[in-house]
Amino acid sequence: MELNGVTIDDTYAEGFPTWVARPIITAVTEEWAYKAALEAVGFATSTIGCPAEAGIDCFVSPDETPDGRPGYAILICASKKKLKEQVVERLSECVLTAPTTAVFDGLPDLIDDVPEKIPVKLHFFGDGYEEKREVGGRTVWAIPIMEGEYIGEEEFGIVKGVAGGNFFVMGENQMAALMAAQAAVDAISGVCGVITPFPGGIVASGSKVGSKKYRFMNASTNEAYCPTLREKVAGSKVPEGVGAIYEIVIDGVAEEAVKTAMAEGIRAATKVPGVKYISAGNFGGSLGPFKLELKDVLADYL
Amino acid sequence: MELNGVTIDDTYAEGFPTWVARPIITAVTEEWAYKAALEAVGFATSTIGCPAEAGIDCFVSPDETPDGRPGYAILICASKKKLKEQVVERLSECVLTAPTTAVFDGLPDLIDDVPEKIPVKLHFFGDGYEEKREVGGRTVWAIPIMEGEYIGEEEFGIVKGVAGGNFFVMGENQMAALMAAQAAVDAISGVCGVITPFPGGIVASGSKVGSKKYRFMNASTNEAYCPTLREKVAGSKVPEGVGAIYEIVIDGVAEEAVKTAMAEGIRAATKVPGVKYISAGNFGGSLGPFKLELKDVLADYL
Amino acid sequence: MELNGVTIDDTYAEGFPTWVARPIITAVTEEWAYKAALEAVGFATSTIGCPAEAGIDCFVSPDETPDGRPGYAILICASKKKLKEQVVERLSECVLTAPTTAVFDGLPDLIDDVPEKIPVKLHFFGDGYEEKREVGGRTVWAIPIMEGEYIGEEEFGIVKGVAGGNFFVMGENQMAALMAAQAAVDAISGVCGVITPFPGGIVASGSKVGSKKYRFMNASTNEAYCPTLREKVAGSKVPEGVGAIYEIVIDGVAEEAVKTAMAEGIRAATKVPGVKYISAGNFGGSLGPFKLELKDVLADYL
Amino acid sequence: MELNGVTIDDTYAEGFPTWVARPIITAVTEEWAYKAALEAVGFATSTIGCPAEAGIDCFVSPDETPDGRPGYAILICASKKKLKEQVVERLSECVLTAPTTAVFDGLPDLIDDVPEKIPVKLHFFGDGYEEKREVGGRTVWAIPIMEGEYIGEEEFGIVKGVAGGNFFVMGENQMAALMAAQAAVDAISGVCGVITPFPGGIVASGSKVGSKKYRFMNASTNEAYCPTLREKVAGSKVPEGVGAIYEIVIDGVAEEAVKTAMAEGIRAATKVPGVKYISAGNFGGSLGPFKLELKDVLADYL
Repeated sequence: MELNGVTIDDTYAEGFPTWVARPIITAVTEEWAYKAALEAVGFATSTIGCPAEAGIDCFVSPDETPDGRPGYAILICASKKKLKEQVVERLSECVLTAPTTAVFDGLPDLIDDVPEKIPVKLHFFGDGYEEKREVGGRTVWAIPIMEGEYIGEEEFGIVKGVAGGNFFVMGENQMAALMAAQAAVDAISGVCGVITPFPGGIVASGSKVGSKKYRFMNASTNEAYCPTLREKVAGSKVPEGVGAIYEIVIDGVAEEAVKTAMAEGIRAATKVPGVKYISAGNFGGSLGPFKLELKDVLADYL
Repeated sequence: MELNGVTIDDTYAEGFPTWVARPIITAVTEEWAYKAALEAVGFATSTIGCPAEAGIDCFVSPDETPDGRPGYAILICASKKKLKEQVVERLSECVLTAPTTAVFDGLPDLIDDVPEKIPVKLHFFGDGYEEKREVGGRTVWAIPIMEGEYIGEEEFGIVKGVAGGNFFVMGENQMAALMAAQAAVDAISGVCGVITPFPGGIVASGSKVGSKKYRFMNASTNEAYCPTLREKVAGSKVPEGVGAIYEIVIDGVAEEAVKTAMAEGIRAATKVPGVKYISAGNFGGSLGPFKLELKDVLADYL
Repeated sequence: MELNGVTIDDTYAEGFPTWVARPIITAVTEEWAYKAALEAVGFATSTIGCPAEAGIDCFVSPDETPDGRPGYAILICASKKKLKEQVVERLSECVLTAPTTAVFDGLPDLIDDVPEKIPVKLHFFGDGYEEKREVGGRTVWAIPIMEGEYIGEEEFGIVKGVAGGNFFVMGENQMAALMAAQAAVDAISGVCGVITPFPGGIVASGSKVGSKKYRFMNASTNEAYCPTLREKVAGSKVPEGVGAIYEIVIDGVAEEAVKTAMAEGIRAATKVPGVKYISAGNFGGSLGPFKLELKDVLADYL
Repeated sequence: MELNGVTIDDTYAEGFPTWVARPIITAVTEEWAYKAALEAVGFATSTIGCPAEAGIDCFVSPDETPDGRPGYAILICASKKKLKEQVVERLSECVLTAPTTAVFDGLPDLIDDVPEKIPVKLHFFGDGYEEKREVGGRTVWAIPIMEGEYIGEEEFGIVKGVAGGNFFVMGENQMAALMAAQAAVDAISGVCGVITPFPGGIVASGSKVGSKKYRFMNASTNEAYCPTLREKVAGSKVPEGVGAIYEIVIDGVAEEAVKTAMAEGIRAATKVPGVKYISAGNFGGSLGPFKLELKDVLADYL
């Protein structure tokens, strides 16, 4: 297969289930909403070593937020057990503390039947001075704080989504691969219901499960895809002429959203000069039940 | 006391000890170094609910980094016990994974006699393909990864620094206080060896220790400083004419750096129209041993 | 009239005709498209002293650009006579020179019957090495340059639009008015077909036509709206309790777009604490034929 | 010659004289100073088609500005005849109109004996309500405006500087060359007294003087350096294996500053993987008197 002159491998990305919450953070201006969102989704690239995977989903315009102010929707992804704790901590430490913010549940904007809700009782911070109120049809708590008042919903829908959607961008050198990865992340940022949780949306050091040499490691470098090891390891999967590979990892509220993100990202990457191949990462089905075939994902574009 | 027409309270900020590491993250351009640094210091506003306190200390020019590329120094602050784990996880999940990054120990650039070092063995990720090398006089590991090679030092100096340096910015309304807080954060960003770990550097919801009503809470709203409760609580410390209060919290490698940051931040805040008072938060000495008196901190400017 | 507790003056903004072109600038990533757009619309706040009024209209997603790359639409506004020269110079000096850019005519995306086209013959730069081509259904010139190839359309639709749409944001102090002005600019950035050409979208020094004291000045400070002159000039229009006033000036491809922008901007501004009044600037009909009544503009929200 | 494994051509950049002014723009926060500076230096890449060449020189910390607020120094470069008009228009249209700004002469901070001053009488805008004042040892005018007061010096030093300092970054493909150009611009941004006036600091379409085919053109594509014409033109200067070339153009207050900028920029570019050659542009001495030899410029690094 080819797209824009770039070879698309006949393979699939292997996704696995994750639970997802989608808070919307509003503030007095776009910038202040963004700063709070950014703090809230930090240290959240991979559940291998971070307490959650998180990222900014998309901008939400004043017309679409309960309080008529600009906002950003974020996704927080984790096991069901860890998700509640992570939503509570990230909202209480990174958003309640941020200037002029309010928080609302943004999952119902994307999903018709939200299967489940988790309580996020930030109002205890009010020490009895808090009160219930209604904002834009939502029941919220108003908590007196030093800047004035914090407004927040306290029930957040959660849904079983898909983690680990991914594709590999292979370039003739590092900078070509990097800019193509950036172009992919730009394109994915326009798709609702997904995040690319790694730094700047890009993974420089994709991993394999476990380690051959160091038994205590849960994950280690994916040597088959390391360009500098091309001549040194048996079965290298680095094609000739490829100098660098980046992985884009995508988590989303549903399989369809992840597939759309993969399609938009791959299409954008193939438009960058110097990109040679697009592939995807899977573990033969051992990691998860979602098989996101590139040829299926790209059906509309091929 | 007055500075630029703003009343400075005769009080002190109460700081407490924290252990601090200071990695420098370099990358191909300033932007990519910044993106990695940002991810690495996220979800790290307060150890009340985050696994660490962290932030970007300052830009490090190519002339001053071991590999001659642009970089950002970050501070990661936690108890000695937690610090090693946090440095390992934040570097391995947020920097090793980020495009084009390398990491070096930046503490020796600030501190003459670094008292202690912690091992940060990311090279196990290399699964045996890694190798030792020297870059700019530093011993590093080169780990083959999908983008090419990750370069990193694996011993990081740590030092007993100061957390909880702070001051309050009181404005006649919320926007005046917020812009003054922003001006303060801008000024502090020019001081080396300190961070302002909250979102955008600013705390909107300063807290008191514990809670009167909800016993299970470690911290709750500081009602004495809540403008909307001014007429409702006994002993409110909100001066007449003050509509909003922001707190700037500062962590640093040493008491002197924190004091310099407080001075620069306060001076900048007092230049913003609509600012009425500067104060500081303390708990009567119960929280920590550092008494950072505003009149002492500002001695050069008063 | 009141909106969100803010008094809306029963007055109108006075607009006047301007000719408008709307190039779309695409590039390899959003960032590079943005950098080129930014340079192209600089030094273009007011035709009083700048050669044109210009600004970034909106982001154009890869799905909507002829070459499938991300882009920004800009508006360039001037008299018909000056517009051609300004489009030629701004595209040839600021976009043809910018990394990875291509340029297309974006007016047909907004306007059904583009009344007129101007030629913008950048291909002469190719010195004979240029060639005609088709990209996404558009006839373009491909010009060999040092980075590779520049792709550009050479006919740009122009339309008689509206300049000088405006409103005043009056705050109890400067920072409240400024943040409200920023919130207004944020909201207007979501409206297609309009720009706010001043720095950051905001005018700090609104002017009156001519000068009473200095005859050689075409414009001078609007003393009736200067808060510091409230007690010094007869007929001051600064309401009691107002400490600062910002003006938002809007140019657009059509009266309707300008009115929508005014409505979204005013609504956003009224949500910022510390804003007291919204008004608008007019010259009793001497400047232009468009009377944009605030009560009409805000009809949907009042 | 080689630097970091990249071949440095034994050639020189040809610079020519330009007159330079250096206003410092301060504002309430760094962001607002930056926004005003950005507008003021727009549409100013090359005097071939723009009214001036301009750019942001560097950040000026509150400690170093006359009013103790953060600022940005900009350079405006033009012929002596045009410079005064350009400084007047850019300051009056783009800075006096920008929120919270003040302007001071920043040339004396760099140059000991400023040879000449130009008057920039913005105070006429005050229509008689303006008044003289002193701020930080500078004589300024305070002009009542709608946001409050504009503060500005009205005499600006000018100096005969150097325009057209430059170097070429040649990469094995476009993205490698582009990222190296970006790395160069980053590095140059740390050098005081210089600007890179093109969009994002980078020239994608370096030109030759005049045109062979179109006599009315002052400048046209430099076909000898166009990679796509490598096989088509006689005497191509595109080395084998080079897929793209970017030019960095530097203007500065003095030859020494321009040379330092060239050195820092080249050094940074050579550290980016995929860069093959560094060269420079000259016209055999027909354009200007400054011969900036690469081997001389890089003497400290070779």
